[in-house]
Amino acid sequence: MSFLDEVPWNEHGLIAAVTQDAATGRVLTVAWMNREALKETAERGEAVYWSRSRKRLWRKGEESGHVQKVIELRLDCDADALLLKVEQVGGIACHTGRESCFFRKLENGRWVTTDPVLKDPSQIYKNR
Amino acid sequence: MSFLDEVPWNEHGLIAAVTQDAATGRVLTVAWMNREALKETAERGEAVYWSRSRKRLWRKGEESGHVQKVIELRLDCDADALLLKVEQVGGIACHTGRESCFFRKLENGRWVTTDPVLKDPSQIYKNR
Repeated sequence: MSFLDEVPWNEHGLIAAVTQDAATGRVLTVAWMNREALKETAERGEAVYWSRSRKRLWRKGEESGHVQKVIELRLDCDADALLLKVEQVGGIACHTGRESCFFRKLENGRWVTTDPVLKDPSQIYKNR
Repeated sequence: MSFLDEVPWNEHGLIAAVTQDAATGRVLTVAWMNREALKETAERGEAVYWSRSRKRLWRKGEESGHVQKVIELRLDCDADALLLKVEQVGGIACHTGRESCFFRKLENGRWVTTDPVLKDPSQIYKNR
């Protein structure tokens, strides 16, 4: 039996995937994978997700160059979430040009942006 | 406007919540919150989730004592995931008696259990 068969894919054929910087422990992104994305991630050693908005495989970094090299791939107890420990090429995971997508923090009842933009998105996505 | 209104709750009224040990960076759990769970988490400073299987609020640690004290609460760029940095009371987040729910690692095409059981679940959930 393939490791892919142990994932009880949800009603949309997906599983949540949390991605963490292997060196710093910072949580970078939460995205989704389908069977093909997980298979390809394991084979290539680079994160491949399923883009729910674009309805296609999303090879992380395909436009930006901000590839996530997979150091470790983990599955949780009820097999409904994956954890990827990665080396984040370029140090930027978020489409806003920030290190992490979790750049807002709850402070006194408000979401406050705490992280700087490291690179202007217009410089990251030149072909858009 | 409340910070709760900035979350575009999914079709089930939920948002994914990744919980990480604030001290070690280890990702402990992925669970779900509804509006009430997030409100209560922010107010109490302890993680409260929505149990999809039991269809009720799940005050983490209510049976086990393994409460998660919230140090920081973050929201991602498209507001479809939360990140909680917590102090994990008892050092056990998983119902299997392990530190983290992500105790299985992909090795040579197989999910291999890498983490020890720290406490027998029958000793954790005595009233079941």
